Formats: sequence, structure tokens, C-alpha cells
Amino acid sequence: MTENVGPIDASVNPRYSGIATFARLPRIEDVPRADIAVVGIPFDSGVSYRPGTRFGPSHVRESSRLLRPYNPAQDVSPFAIAQVVDAGDIPVNPFDLTEAVSEVERAALALGEQVQRIVTIGGDHTVALPLLRAVAAKHGPVAVLHFDAHLDTWDTYFGAPITHGTPFRRASEEGLIDLTASCHVGTRGPLYSKQDLEDDERLGFSIVSSEYIEEHGVEAGIARILQRIGDKPLYVSIDIDVLDPAHAPGTGTPEAGGLTSRELLRILRALSSQNIVGADVVEVSPAYDHAQMTGIAASHVVYELVCLLAARVGSDSQ
Amino acid sequence: MTENVGPIDASVNPRYSGIATFARLPRIEDVPRADIAVVGIPFDSGVSYRPGTRFGPSHVRESSRLLRPYNPAQDVSPFAIAQVVDAGDIPVNPFDLTEAVSEVERAALALGEQVQRIVTIGGDHTVALPLLRAVAAKHGPVAVLHFDAHLDTWDTYFGAPITHGTPFRRASEEGLIDLTASCHVGTRGPLYSKQDLEDDERLGFSIVSSEYIEEHGVEAGIARILQRIGDKPLYVSIDIDVLDPAHAPGTGTPEAGGLTSRELLRILRALSSQNIVGADVVEVSPAYDHAQMTGIAASHVVYELVCLLAARVGSDSQ
Amino acid sequence: MTENVGPIDASVNPRYSGIATFARLPRIEDVPRADIAVVGIPFDSGVSYRPGTRFGPSHVRESSRLLRPYNPAQDVSPFAIAQVVDAGDIPVNPFDLTEAVSEVERAALALGEQVQRIVTIGGDHTVALPLLRAVAAKHGPVAVLHFDAHLDTWDTYFGAPITHGTPFRRASEEGLIDLTASCHVGTRGPLYSKQDLEDDERLGFSIVSSEYIEEHGVEAGIARILQRIGDKPLYVSIDIDVLDPAHAPGTGTPEAGGLTSRELLRILRALSSQNIVGADVVEVSPAYDHAQMTGIAASHVVYELVCLLAARVGSDSQ
Amino acid sequence: MTENVGPIDASVNPRYSGIATFARLPRIEDVPRADIAVVGIPFDSGVSYRPGTRFGPSHVRESSRLLRPYNPAQDVSPFAIAQVVDAGDIPVNPFDLTEAVSEVERAALALGEQVQRIVTIGGDHTVALPLLRAVAAKHGPVAVLHFDAHLDTWDTYFGAPITHGTPFRRASEEGLIDLTASCHVGTRGPLYSKQDLEDDERLGFSIVSSEYIEEHGVEAGIARILQRIGDKPLYVSIDIDVLDPAHAPGTGTPEAGGLTSRELLRILRALSSQNIVGADVVEVSPAYDHAQMTGIAASHVVYELVCLLAARVGSDSQ
Amino acid sequence: MTENVGPIDASVNPRYSGIATFARLPRIEDVPRADIAVVGIPFDSGVSYRPGTRFGPSHVRESSRLLRPYNPAQDVSPFAIAQVVDAGDIPVNPFDLTEAVSEVERAALALGEQVQRIVTIGGDHTVALPLLRAVAAKHGPVAVLHFDAHLDTWDTYFGAPITHGTPFRRASEEGLIDLTASCHVGTRGPLYSKQDLEDDERLGFSIVSSEYIEEHGVEAGIARILQRIGDKPLYVSIDIDVLDPAHAPGTGTPEAGGLTSRELLRILRALSSQNIVGADVVEVSPAYDHAQMTGIAASHVVYELVCLLAARVGSDSQ
Amino acid sequence: MTENVGPIDASVNPRYSGIATFARLPRIEDVPRADIAVVGIPFDSGVSYRPGTRFGPSHVRESSRLLRPYNPAQDVSPFAIAQVVDAGDIPVNPFDLTEAVSEVERAALALGEQVQRIVTIGGDHTVALPLLRAVAAKHGPVAVLHFDAHLDTWDTYFGAPITHGTPFRRASEEGLIDLTASCHVGTRGPLYSKQDLEDDERLGFSIVSSEYIEEHGVEAGIARILQRIGDKPLYVSIDIDVLDPAHAPGTGTPEAGGLTSRELLRILRALSSQNIVGADVVEVSPAYDHAQMTGIAASHVVYELVCLLAARVGSDSQ
Repeated sequence: MTENVGPIDASVNPRYSGIATFARLPRIEDVPRADIAVVGIPFDSGVSYRPGTRFGPSHVRESSRLLRPYNPAQDVSPFAIAQVVDAGDIPVNPFDLTEAVSEVERAALALGEQVQRIVTIGGDHTVALPLLRAVAAKHGPVAVLHFDAHLDTWDTYFGAPITHGTPFRRASEEGLIDLTASCHVGTRGPLYSKQDLEDDERLGFSIVSSEYIEEHGVEAGIARILQRIGDKPLYVSIDIDVLDPAHAPGTGTPEAGGLTSRELLRILRALSSQNIVGADVVEVSPAYDHAQMTGIAASHVVYELVCLLAARVGSDSQ
Repeated sequence: MTENVGPIDASVNPRYSGIATFARLPRIEDVPRADIAVVGIPFDSGVSYRPGTRFGPSHVRESSRLLRPYNPAQDVSPFAIAQVVDAGDIPVNPFDLTEAVSEVERAALALGEQVQRIVTIGGDHTVALPLLRAVAAKHGPVAVLHFDAHLDTWDTYFGAPITHGTPFRRASEEGLIDLTASCHVGTRGPLYSKQDLEDDERLGFSIVSSEYIEEHGVEAGIARILQRIGDKPLYVSIDIDVLDPAHAPGTGTPEAGGLTSRELLRILRALSSQNIVGADVVEVSPAYDHAQMTGIAASHVVYELVCLLAARVGSDSQ
Repeated sequence: MTENVGPIDASVNPRYSGIATFARLPRIEDVPRADIAVVGIPFDSGVSYRPGTRFGPSHVRESSRLLRPYNPAQDVSPFAIAQVVDAGDIPVNPFDLTEAVSEVERAALALGEQVQRIVTIGGDHTVALPLLRAVAAKHGPVAVLHFDAHLDTWDTYFGAPITHGTPFRRASEEGLIDLTASCHVGTRGPLYSKQDLEDDERLGFSIVSSEYIEEHGVEAGIARILQRIGDKPLYVSIDIDVLDPAHAPGTGTPEAGGLTSRELLRILRALSSQNIVGADVVEVSPAYDHAQMTGIAASHVVYELVCLLAARVGSDSQ
Repeated sequence: MTENVGPIDASVNPRYSGIATFARLPRIEDVPRADIAVVGIPFDSGVSYRPGTRFGPSHVRESSRLLRPYNPAQDVSPFAIAQVVDAGDIPVNPFDLTEAVSEVERAALALGEQVQRIVTIGGDHTVALPLLRAVAAKHGPVAVLHFDAHLDTWDTYFGAPITHGTPFRRASEEGLIDLTASCHVGTRGPLYSKQDLEDDERLGFSIVSSEYIEEHGVEAGIARILQRIGDKPLYVSIDIDVLDPAHAPGTGTPEAGGLTSRELLRILRALSSQNIVGADVVEVSPAYDHAQMTGIAASHVVYELVCLLAARVGSDSQ
Repeated sequence: MTENVGPIDASVNPRYSGIATFARLPRIEDVPRADIAVVGIPFDSGVSYRPGTRFGPSHVRESSRLLRPYNPAQDVSPFAIAQVVDAGDIPVNPFDLTEAVSEVERAALALGEQVQRIVTIGGDHTVALPLLRAVAAKHGPVAVLHFDAHLDTWDTYFGAPITHGTPFRRASEEGLIDLTASCHVGTRGPLYSKQDLEDDERLGFSIVSSEYIEEHGVEAGIARILQRIGDKPLYVSIDIDVLDPAHAPGTGTPEAGGLTSRELLRILRALSSQNIVGADVVEVSPAYDHAQMTGIAASHVVYELVCLLAARVGSDSQ
Repeated sequence: MTENVGPIDASVNPRYSGIATFARLPRIEDVPRADIAVVGIPFDSGVSYRPGTRFGPSHVRESSRLLRPYNPAQDVSPFAIAQVVDAGDIPVNPFDLTEAVSEVERAALALGEQVQRIVTIGGDHTVALPLLRAVAAKHGPVAVLHFDAHLDTWDTYFGAPITHGTPFRRASEEGLIDLTASCHVGTRGPLYSKQDLEDDERLGFSIVSSEYIEEHGVEAGIARILQRIGDKPLYVSIDIDVLDPAHAPGTGTPEAGGLTSRELLRILRALSSQNIVGADVVEVSPAYDHAQMTGIAASHVVYELVCLLAARVGSDSQ
């Protein structure tokens, strides 16, 4: 395994130098094979409020220059035990939402043939639907652990059945999700009506809300999450707005009262025994960020996900 | 009740469209009657450090576009059970502090004849004095639950007896406050002298400081608050600087070590059994805000207060 | 004429107070009749680079609070001689570009029946096409004076024939433009190929580029413009990126080397004898603005256009 | 003359080090005598729109660290030929406009006994009135060269006769100004009515507007200015909003279409033969500045004024 | 004790007025003697990522204007019981890292002869090495309580043995630190390799990581810290990046998942029985700050340290 | 020529997508041969005031995404007639100024063997010295056309003979510059003493100052420049601070009164007949930029230089 190509050597090239790839990892075309790909989807045609997530992937890349190769919190050196690469961005049509969703699905399927696992950087949350299609095509219905301020199980809006408010409704309807094992985490803030909650429950999701974590603590939240997802193949979908605007101002539909980045990282680390088959980190909107605060939080979250995947890839391949 | 006019329909007019009223609610002149009014006081002549809260009301309005009509945390649809309106701004003299205070009092009394309850968006904290005068004129001395980094019971400064540092001293002296049931929450940071604390105690306030919450937790704080205010008619006054600068940079006298927006929302929700007779959210200073972070926190706080009031108005009117 | 309802009286309501309409003018529903409407189109589905112009109308409104009722540069009191109103925003579909274009056209036609002249605040430049359709429906093919860093006569992009890069190509093809009298002003920066210029010339536009103005001066530019447009009914379309990024950072496709706001205002004032039948100011993207710099420039440009229109409306109605 | 104490030596203390005084000059209390004092007035109680100029003096000081001791444009080493000092800030009452104006007058008179010439950093433009009182007490009525986007000869507003919109009306009425030799430069933007211009003319001012400079050039403007002021004792009052918002976003009532900093500096340098008896640079509002852009422009303007004064002080004292 | 010179009187000079010293305290040259000096080191030649801490001292000074003289959290009036002064900035060579380190050491030794205790405002963390040399010269090896996201026990980087990543390795090697009593607090984020942790442990440090505090709470962390440092003479070194980027965006190597300012202040206040012999607060990088958020947090931290020192100085001198 | 590999196709990959190279050009390692290389030097150890130019190259790359392949102002398609590539960044030692200068020289010499012409993106202006060494090694002493607010012929500062203030003094002393044909353009602002100008003149430079351009116009400036440089091999060195802070706030030593980006581009285009042998664009400091305003100006300047070089390379190779 030691022959994996790691990030650019920071003792030769300072961290601020060089063309930005995620964590300064090699591009997929620069290595013979890869286990895990980080890929961007610069896309925001599905947003209902502030746009700008089309610049999310490049912003997270620039914000990821400080990531180092050993993660003490998980005691993992992800880039040593797995070949992790930056697969660049999936080009998608900015003017045609339906076409864009197809393009993401096709590209995710194609990339899935090259690598074992994919972590996607959005882009708006619309992309979770085609990503889940690609994952389900390989793994069948998966448990979804969905971190978000919002339920994202809303229905057709302005005639569009697929937007950043609907991926988990559509994925449920398409049978891509194991609804006995899926869960929203960190939801909060006002809804259109009580019906939103009832629809969501009917679809099969359970909820560990931000209010729950405030009242019962992170540990209780983790227990509920782990119990819920069990040992199902797991897809982790993280809308960065699960964080409080204090931690992630650079997003499109911010809601007060969210998680801290420390809490989010802690919950993610609790997933070390799960069989994660895919993940995304979406809704980073750089024009609203400050000093890369949101970009850094997102890059740490992506890194933590890569570590979780690498630990398993590493052990698989031994 | 269903005939209340709610916010502009976001399925027809996207949330970012249209002239900004609070939560996209109707203006008071556009509906035949109203139960609860949100009103702005664009004013900062009483500030001792950073000015700019004169732009607070318009900023909170623009930041409130995402508020939706159902609050799951309180299980309330405030705009359905009460007619909530935006009553615009109270015009006040920017050059004459004394005149301005009178103008606010007169306007609040007049508005109080049109609606049952008022939630005010400041403006600086000076406005709490005339607002309390108007409230006490109707309800007699009220319990005051005061969220703030500061005591605001300071004395005359540069010859001005009434400034944003003195409203609760003056209100105490004028007999507007039930001092057996009033409480500061979230205070912290350095004072001029120990005398400040002694004066405050002599006036009759108790304190649940930010340090107390850090050490004993929010639940203990809520218990102390509820015990303190009992079942008295309650006025809630929220200086947005009760939040940590991380959560509310857009304010005039920020102090490190404050509450999170999640904690503040939790405490407010614990007031659901109280007889709230008025409320204000003050000291939002947009020039120091970033990505509407402070404006969003303030708009959520206003919304939570409106929900508390609407629940009661709704039940009253049944 | 004196019975026109003007802006809110700033000697009673300070400029920073009150719900924001353009220049603090009355809303169209608050006056019995109107001559000139300022209307917003919160829309950015047609952009090819930075999105965000959906927040343009509300940003320009907030940035227009300082506009006063007498314009010494044109010696005109626009709000006295014409009833000018804020007609709010045209709600448009954020997810379907084609539908959105139809909605704008329909709304512009309908508004055109209520008022004599419309000045539109974008929104991205896509909206110029449906606006020109509505104008041409009333006036026949019009001369177009197009201020922009870009030609906006590009062709289908990602399968979309109508985007913010194509309005003047499509309008030309649809016969909406009098191509003997139309002109781009302020274009600059790199193109895809020389073919872009050839296509543009073939369509019939002439060009007064930013380089031309740098070399020959504003006066020479004005002479060429006036000669070109002659006495034709004129539509003025102003992409705020015609200004240098120093003057208008808050836009989506900024190019170095542009006009100053002083130059743009001067050119506009030279149009006082023209028969302007409609106008738009587009591409203000607030998330990239600083201290309302772009919003203020745009609001002054809208005001100057309103003055040009009011002078004529005023004289018409005498 | 060589014994004057100059700025801190930048070859020993880097420019970014040390407690900030203007241009890193000695404080007035640290030298035995002084010829020219730069003094701040942290004050914004007289503003009608965006406040914040109370932080102007400290911002200009921090922005002045790069100023070096030789001015090639005037061929003057101001700190060598005159003892220039930072006299700190005049403390003024933030809550009482009338008292504040008196405090400024008293302090300016007192400081005027210590030094020959004063350059004031505002603060809002209200301060020009008490400063002119102090200057006229010494020199009689003075010519005023007033750089501003606005006329500042407006009348009582919200009952306040003295605000940042009225200093030159009040000064005219008090006989402080030689109205045969005074001039506004750089005015632009909308007014309340044509009466504003007529009042201004009646008071005796002439105007070299921003539009005039755009059309006729800076040289023509300078000629008109010099002809107007003749050889009268001259007070120079510079509202930083005379600059375009592109050059000075950090101000309270910005208007598009202003001067560039290069043009302003050129005009000032043309005053080298004038008998300048006092000067102010006002309306820098740091909360709206970016990267000290406005602060740097203001500090260069103050420096240029100091050079003009020093050249004369230097020659006087020889 | 009452003859100590305190801060400028805010009832005469408003807080935003006057030349900025830390907490508006007297400069060291303005008082006859001093107990505690706050001194700046404007320096960033040792940084490995974002530079800019050379502007740290002036930024913290400007951000400290709101600090008042009584600290209720410690029940201490630090400026009454000790003469606290601002000793200005230590001028250091920006181009020669080795020379700079010597200059800091010499200046700290010299200042240490004038005052009992020094609190330093950085500058980058490189300065901790020469500061520890100066402290150890007086007190022998000291316990170090090191708050930081990073270990700062890294080794030579780009040939430089002394940088902001190495002070505690070098100090350990030089015998300046009592390694039986030293501790990192708040560390988190990825490392180069597991070897980093092993090296750190071998040097003798223990770690109370940010993850530890997230899982076990602040109280448990404090217990571990107090047990670790015992009653040894203590040096407290606070890299502001120990705070989460939400609380301290203005720093050079931010890592998600940090402490809140409330937590940090609480831990510091728990040190009231310790014999603190010196302290620094470093890595404030103003160009990345917003609304002085980081500067205010840092100024509160410096103030808390001054209070801890003053309480002891005060009691010593009785 | 058509076989040159151009930028990524924007009709397939939207401009905001993909890993950022300059103008989305291929990396040098991705093409078989190259004519012109754009290379970054992330470096700021030589700065005397605001640091941060180490992030300049990545910022200019991100800001260059909008550059299109045809330049109408020069009527050139640079990427068609020459193979232009992004050669990445030269890694340089951040802690040792002398070593860094050597590294740049070695890297520039090595790269110069691969390509005909290099355009460098700084980094601070220190890099001009080693770049000139590399150029002179190939071409002998070259004319230098130096755009800058400053002379950069200062002498040793804090013991460092080579900093960003000295490259042209050192280059002169080393005989790298043809001093009969070299010229500063755009200089302005205060100097240390008149000696600075005398030294500069003695070294042999002539000056077309910003004041000269203000007074005599750009055309006169161009004439003087062209006369001065004649037909000598020319090195163009552009400190972005030659632009006014309004156009380029993101730089380290800003001076009011500079050029506009339109003026700078015009002057550069006048060099189309010159034999340019190398060029740099330096001193972009992203932490002080806003909305990529400075980055965009710099990327346009680099593009214009590439066009000048490509026109000649193209004709050479025919």
C-alpha cells in the first residue's frame, strides 16, 4: 500500500503553492489507479434562495491546502492506506436542471467504475439524487444519514420535481433509500406546514433535530443515529448548512441554531464502523463565506469522510 | 381564524422577490385588522460605541425572507392563528435623543391601540424605555426578561440620563418594572466597577450570566429564569449582543464569551407558558454583519417571539 | 402635475427608515394612476458565470434611499412631473428558463398597459429579450443602445438559445431591433473568436468600445452614439458591468478596463432629446458588492433614466 | 529647522509597528513646540444617513503608516521644515449636538494658541462650523474651498439647525466666510429641489461640479477655483465623499459619479501659492471601507494639506 | 495602590476616541513605574501559511477600546491593584528570522527589568521561544500551558529550525520548559504523521485536545490541566487559533472544530491560583478578521491574563 | 499552428468548473511542447508592509477563469498562434530570502530552456531581480519598463540588500538593465527623501509618473515610453499597485492617485511592436482584495502580456 501517491510534499512545495487540488492530492489522470475519488459538481441550478454553489468545489479545494496526511482523531493516514485522488469536476449544464441531473448520474456511474468510493463536493443538494441513483445501482437501496438544517423532502416547486429541496423525497419514491435505516440530523427552523413533517415521517425518515442535540447532547444523538442506521450500507449526505451560520456563513439557506463544526466532526467520527458506500458535502456558497471559514469546515468534513472510507478500503485491500 | 392574511406565497413569488416586509407579511395598512405587529425603530442616537442600528430594521426585514409559516419547535403556525403584520418603522428624530424617546412612546401607545401585541426591531437599546412606558401604561409594572451582554442599568453618561446603557435603570426608577420578577440573561465582560453590580442588585434585578450558563448549562439557566419571572406579565427585551460575536458580529458593543443562537432560541421556547405582553430585539448593526448572519439570527428570534405571542393570541381569541 | 405622489418625505421619515421601495416612491397599488414604473425582475437562471442577480432588485431598492427628487444635471424634478412608482417584482420561475422568459414578457405587456414607460431592474441580461418583445409589440422595432462589457450577441450555449449572453442576437432575429440605429457601448475584454465580432456586425450593431472612449474621449463617443441612434424610438439596456470593476464589483462577469460611473452618467444625460421607450439596468449581483457601491451606481443610473423618461412624459402630458 | 522631531524612523521600527499616530508623527505632548497639528474629532451625531465617522480619526491614523517624509509632487519635506504633530482627538459629547459643537470650537481655539495651523480629521461635516468659528476668530472671514458631493448649505433638519448638511449655511449666516471667494468643488447627484441651488447661490457660493470636471477637465476646474479664491486667507474643507464611491466607499452619503483620488490630489497641489489658514478632511466612515482604501485616500489628502501648510510655515519661520 | 494610573476616563473621552493603546492604558513612558506590561511584537516571518500577524498588535489595541476596569468574572479591578501599561511594540527585523528572535529575547529581558510581568501580543508563535528564554532566565524552567490547534513541536521546516511551528520543541531542547507540568490544550486537526504525536509525547507534553473537551466537557479538561501544571511557575501561551474559526477567523492556520471563546475564558479563569510568570496571545491576523471579532476575543483573553497577573501582583505588593 | 492545445472548452466545461490553471490553459506537463509559460511565484518574504502575495498566483488563477481566447484589442488569438501553458508555481523558501532569490533564478533559467518566453505572477517584487538575472543571462542587459507606484530602487533595509523595494537598484548594479532605455511608469506618493529621486536618476531610470499622466494624458505618456525604450529587448515588470487602490485594493503598499486599469491596458497594448523578452505581474495580495477585483485586473494584464508575446512567437515560428 505504501506506493500510493500522496499529496504534494509540503516540505518542498509550501502549502500555499501549486495548482489547487483537494488536499493537494494527485489528479485522477496522474496516477495509474485510485481507490477513492473526491469529485466536484459545480452546480446551483436547483437552489431556491441564494445561488453560488457552482463555485463550491474550487473554493473547497483552495480551502483544503492545510489538510495534512494523518488524522489523529481517527488514528488513520488515509492517503497512505488508500489511493485518494481529485477527480476534478463533473461538467453539468447550468441551464437545464433535468439534463444536469442526468449528467451527474452518468458521470457518477462512470467514475464509480474507476474507483471504489466517491466523496462529492457540491454543488447544491439536487446532486444527491443522481448520486444516490448511482450508488443504488451498485449497492441497492442504502441507508441515508442526512445532515441538514432542512428536510429536503419537499415536493415540486415552481413546476420542478427535482430541486435542492427534494432529493430525498425523489430518492425515496425511486426506491433508492432503505427507509428503515435513514435519518435527518441537525434539522431546525420553520417549515411550510406541519404536513412537511408528516410527509417526511410517512416517507420513512427519522429525525435527530438540532433542538434534540441542544437538549440531550451529542452523545445521545450519536446513539440514536447508530441505532437507526444499524449495519446497512450507508450513504452520508452533508449539507453544510447543518452547521450554524456562525460556523458556515457561506451557504444558501442559512438557519440560526445549528451545530458547531466540532459537533459535526464528532458525529462523523462515530461512524467508523459503518459501511459507508458514498458521501457528499454540498451547499458551500463561497460568495457568502468569510476567510474560507465555511470552506475550511467543509474541507475538514470531506477529509473526515475520506478517512472513514480509507480505513475500510485499506482493510479491504489487505 | 383561517381568514388571516399570511406571508406572500413563496410558491408564486420566490422568497428573494418582492419588497421586503418582515417574513414577507402584509403591511398593517394592507389588512383590515391585526393582532400582532412587528415594528421597526431605525435609531442609534443612544449608542456609546459603534453606531449603525438605524439600519437594523431594514436589515432584519431583508434577512427574514426565509422564514416559513410553521414553527416545529413550538408546533405553532403563528400567521394562521393570529393576524401578524409589519407595521413599518416608527420615524424618530436622529438629532434629539429626548424627542426621539417621546416619539417612540407616542407611536407605541398608538400602535398598541390597533394591535394586541408588539414586537419591536431596534434600533439601539434606548428604545426599551419608551416601549416599557407604553407597555406599563396598559399592563402596569411588568416582569422584564432581559437578554444582553450588558446590564444596561448604568447611569447618566455625557450628561444624558437616557441612552442605550440606561433603559432598565430609568424604567426601574419610573416604576415600570416588577423588580421581584426581572432578570438579566447572558451578561458578561468587564464593567466599570463592582458598584455596577451592586447598583443593579439594589434596583432589584437578578442575573443569569453567560458564565453561569457555561458552568451550569442552559437547563439550569432556564429553571432559574422561570422561577424568577413566575406568572407575571412579561416583557422580553433581547439585545442581540447576548449572542457571541461569532453568532452576531453585527452589533455595536460586542463582548466575547456569549450565548450561541441555539441556546438563545432554546431559552425563548421555554417561555411558552408565559404571558408575554411585549418584546423587542435590538442592537443589530448591519455594517458590521456578514452574510446576514446577525440579521438571520435576529429574524429567527423575532419569529420565535411572534410564535409565543401568536399561540396566546390565538387561544385568547377562540 | 403637482398632485403626483412623490417619495416618502425625508423630513418626517429619515432616509434609512421605512420599507424599501425604489427611491422611497409609492408602490403602484398605492396610487390611482402611474406614468412610469420601476419594476424588478429577480432572476439569474440565464447567467454563465457568477449568479446572484436574483437579489439585484432588492439591493438596488435598499441602495436608492438617498435619491432626492431634483436632478440638477438634467434640471428635472422627475417625481413632480410624472407619477413614478415602484411596481414591485415580476415573479419568475427560477428553474425553467423558457417559462421565465415568457413570464417576463407577459408581465411587461400587462404592466405596459398600466403605465407609459417602464424601467426594469434585473436580474440577468436574459430579461432584455422579453422586455424588447413587449416594447416592440407596442412601438415596433426599436433602436437599442446597449451598455455592456460584452456584446451579448453570442449564440446557443449548453443547448440554451436564450441566456444572458444572447438577448440581442435573439432580438435581432425576431425583428425587435432597428439594426440601422443600434449600438453597443463600453464593450471590452477577450472574446471567443473574431467570429464574435463578425457575427455582431452582420447582425447590424455598431460598437463604441471602452477602448474607443479611452482613446478618443467621452465626447467623441457621445457624438457617435447620437449619430447612430438618430431619432428612432430608443430602448436603453445597461449591463452594470459596463462600469469598471472598481465602480461595480457587484456583478457576475466583470472585465477590467471599463467606464467610470461619471462617464456613464454623462453619456446618459446626453440622451435628453431621445424618445426613450423603455430601459433596463441589469446584472447587479449583491453578494459581490461592497458598501452598496454597485447598488448606488445602479440606483443613480435608474434615476437618470427615470429623469429622461419623466421629462418627456411630463411634456407629453402638458 | 532641522531640529524638528519627525516620524518614527522606519528603518528601526517597521511601518506596521508601534502605536498609531498620524504618519507616525510625535504626539503634541512629546515635543516642546509645534507648528502644525493634525487633530481628530471622533464624532457622527450630525449625520443624516450612515453613521460611523466617530471611528474616522483612528482609521485614518492606522491608514497613514505608509506616508513617507518627502513629497515629490510638491518637492517638500514637510516634517523637516515644520514641526508637525498629532494632537490626538478632541473629546466631544456623543449625545448632545449643540454641546459637541461648542466643545469643538473651544478645543480648536485652545489648540490654535499652541500651533500655527490645524488640519482636522473628522468626524462628520458638522465640525466644519465650529472649526470655521475658531479660524475666523483669528483670521476674520475666510475663503472656503469646499470639496464635497453635496452643497452642505441645507437648512434645519428634524429641528436641528446645525448638522452635517448645514455647516456652510450657518457659517455664511455667522459671517465666517468670505462669500466673494468661496467655492464648492465636486458636487453632484440629486437635490431636494432647485431651491437648494438657488439658496446656495444666494449665500454666495460658486460651484465647480463633478459634471463640470467631467466635461471640461481638471485643468479648467483648477483655473476657475484659483480665480475664485484669489489671494484670500483660505480654509479648505474636504468631505471625502467628493471622491467617487470607487475611491472612497467608506463614507456616509456616497453618490456615484465623483472625482478620482488622482484628480483631487492634483487640485490640492495647485493650491501651493494660497494662504491656507486651516483645513479639514471629514466623513471617513471606516465600517464601510475596504482594505483601508478610503483611509489611505484620506491620509494622502491630509498629508498633501500638511505639505501645503508646512511649505508656508517653513518659509514664514525662516 | 490607588495611585496607579488607569485607562483614559471614558466619561470624558468616549471609548472610540484617542490614540489606541491596549485598553486605553497609559504608555509605559507616561508613568513613573509599572507592574505589568502589555507589549506587542509585530512579526510574521515565521509563518508557514497565511501571513499578516505583523498587524496583530495594532489590531488588538484597536479592538480593546471597550475593555472596562472591573472584571466581575474574577472579581478583580486589575488596573487599580497594579500599574498596567502598554509598552508599545518590540521592533523586529522582518527579513531575518534569526535576528528577529534575538531582538525579541533582548527586548523581553530589558522589559522584564522594568516590570514584574509581561503579556505579549503577537506576532506569530515563533516569538514564544525568545519569550520563554527571557522568562526562564528569571524563573528557571517553567510549566507551559499552551492553547493551540497545533502542537507547535514540529521540527525544522525549509531549513529553518525556529518557526511558528517549532517554539515548544526548541524550548524543550533548550531546557526552558518544565516538561513534567506542561500541556497543550485545544489541539485538533490533521498532522503530518503519527510521529508528530510521538515526538510531542517524548518531549514531555500532555494533551487536552479539542476532541477531549467535546466529549468530556470543559470541567474535566480544567481538572486535567490543573492537575498537570500543579503549583509550578506557569507560562501561558495562547495561539488564538485554539478558538474555532467561527470565533477567530482572523488567524493564519485555522482548523475547524475548536473551542468557543466562552470555553477559553472559563479555562483561563480557573488559573486564578496559579503563579503565572508570563503569557502571550499570538497569531491574530487582522486581514482575515471580520468586525474585529478575532481582535475582540484576543483582547478579552489578554485582559483575563492581565487580571490573573494583577491579582497576584496586587497581593504581592501588599 | 492549429495543433496548439488551448484552454478547456467552455462550451463543455463551464468556466467556473475544473481545477484552476491560468486562463484554464493546459499545465506544462500535459502538452508535448510550449512556447510561452505563465508561472507563479508564491512568495512574500521581501515585503515591507502588508504581506500576503504568497497567495497571489492561486488568486490570479481563480480570477482568470473568464479570459477568452481572442483579444479584440490586439486582434490576436494568443492560444492559437502559440502554445501557452501554466507552468505551476516555483517553490521557494519562505524563511530565507537569499535562498529564495536563488531558487527563483534557478527555476527561471530552467524554465527558460523549455519555453521561449515567461510571464511570471508574483509574489512580491523581490522576484524581479532573479527573473532579470535569468533574462539577462539569455538576452544581455534589457530595457526595463517598470509599472509601479514606487521606484523600487531603494537600498538595504533592515540589513537586507534584496527586498521588494530594491530589485531595480540591484539589477542596475549587476548590469542586468540597459539603463539608457528603462523607465518607471505610474510612480507617485511620498518618498523618504529627495535623495531617492536623485539615486534613481543616477542609476539611469527615467520616470513617467502618475502625476505626469494626470496632467498630460496617457497618449503623451505612451509617446515618452516608446521613445525611451526604443527597439531594445524589453522586460516588462508590473507591480499591480501601479493601479489606484480603487482598481487594485488587493496589494501590499497601496498609494492613492494611481492609474486606472483601462489606462494600464492601453499603455500595454501600445507595446505591440516591442521585442518583449519577459514579464512579471507582482504584488497581488488576495486577503485585501474584494470580489476578485484585483485578481481580475491582474489576470487581464497577464493576458495582455501573453498576447504581446504570442503575436511575436507566432510570427517567429511562421
